[in-house]
Amino acid sequence: MTVGKVSERTIRRLSHYARCLRHTRTEGKKIVTSEYLAKRCGISSAGVRKDLAVFGEFGKQGSGYDVQSLLANIERILGTGKPSHVIVIGAGNIGHALLESGLEGTGGYNYSAIFDTDPEKQGKICAGTVIQPMTELREAIKELGDVIAVIAVSDGEGQECVNQLVEAGCNAILSFVLEPLDIPEGVELRYIEISTELDILSHSLMLPGR
Amino acid sequence: MTVGKVSERTIRRLSHYARCLRHTRTEGKKIVTSEYLAKRCGISSAGVRKDLAVFGEFGKQGSGYDVQSLLANIERILGTGKPSHVIVIGAGNIGHALLESGLEGTGGYNYSAIFDTDPEKQGKICAGTVIQPMTELREAIKELGDVIAVIAVSDGEGQECVNQLVEAGCNAILSFVLEPLDIPEGVELRYIEISTELDILSHSLMLPGR
Repeated sequence: MTVGKVSERTIRRLSHYARCLRHTRTEGKKIVTSEYLAKRCGISSAGVRKDLAVFGEFGKQGSGYDVQSLLANIERILGTGKPSHVIVIGAGNIGHALLESGLEGTGGYNYSAIFDTDPEKQGKICAGTVIQPMTELREAIKELGDVIAVIAVSDGEGQECVNQLVEAGCNAILSFVLEPLDIPEGVELRYIEISTELDILSHSLMLPGR
Repeated sequence: MTVGKVSERTIRRLSHYARCLRHTRTEGKKIVTSEYLAKRCGISSAGVRKDLAVFGEFGKQGSGYDVQSLLANIERILGTGKPSHVIVIGAGNIGHALLESGLEGTGGYNYSAIFDTDPEKQGKICAGTVIQPMTELREAIKELGDVIAVIAVSDGEGQECVNQLVEAGCNAILSFVLEPLDIPEGVELRYIEISTELDILSHSLMLPGR
């Protein structure tokens, strides 16, 4: 899959570099080498240098990359670095856990609102944020501007939730729901798939030689 | 990345087929076509037929695949289909959300135990399961056999947690922790990366034409 002109794999690596650089910055480090980034991100240092050269970043021989400017440039490419609104649909276990865990250290993302269809939950507070009814969705998205919506509703409610999000003008969705979802052209949808990750690990456990 | 002889991408698609077939089974459907699987999994029907042919599954022209036997064969390849133990390290927000959400519909996985380093939490009940101290880890893994460990500890505690898991004989780990983790050869580690998924979506939002 290609995300615009930059492939998804590259975006993924850049995201890892950015995360690592933020860690590094909090440790007070000003300069990193490609070897350091490579080791922390689990790829080859030649790979790191190649990635960064594509985006016009050249580390100095023997001294490395400036943490602050490298991070700023990667965040510019990623489109992160400015605060970005993330809204959560579904104030169940996962929704609560997400808001309570927060998004610190992720490059400016914030959980800005949470919604639920259950009138029992609406008006209650989840990690400092009022749970809103779905009828407020359109108004909230209009106010916030570009948002990424995280779907953490019950299995079987995912499609209706996506329909309402798209209708309300949201075009970037991250789903924790197991069911496959239909989206119109122009909407980006990604899945957090715990069960698929377990399948991949499970498969690796039964390989010969283990 | 290749997982044994079958590529990770293929395993991922097989996992999607399996999930879709389980859904289909609960709906009482006995036969599916490649077109149906393709639509539900978001790939081409030629792709589905090619995947399944590799594993010796041939749908009948005009009638399709038998749901039950196709699912059994895919689960055999994946190594799922029998109950598999998943343990959780960290009884915080994410750990609680995982156990409370459960793993129904995922092909036999079960959260079998949960551990935490915090003496305040140990002995308390999380979704019907007693929170155990990390000192019980080795004994628990010995008793359960092959386990997949999900790490949901605080940022900064991930590496120590991995070290203890590996030491206790666990060789398949799924991490919710943001920090990059070092593992010895022979241990499989995967990440659930909410922040990377947000970065990929965020990048797509700023592409021209949106």
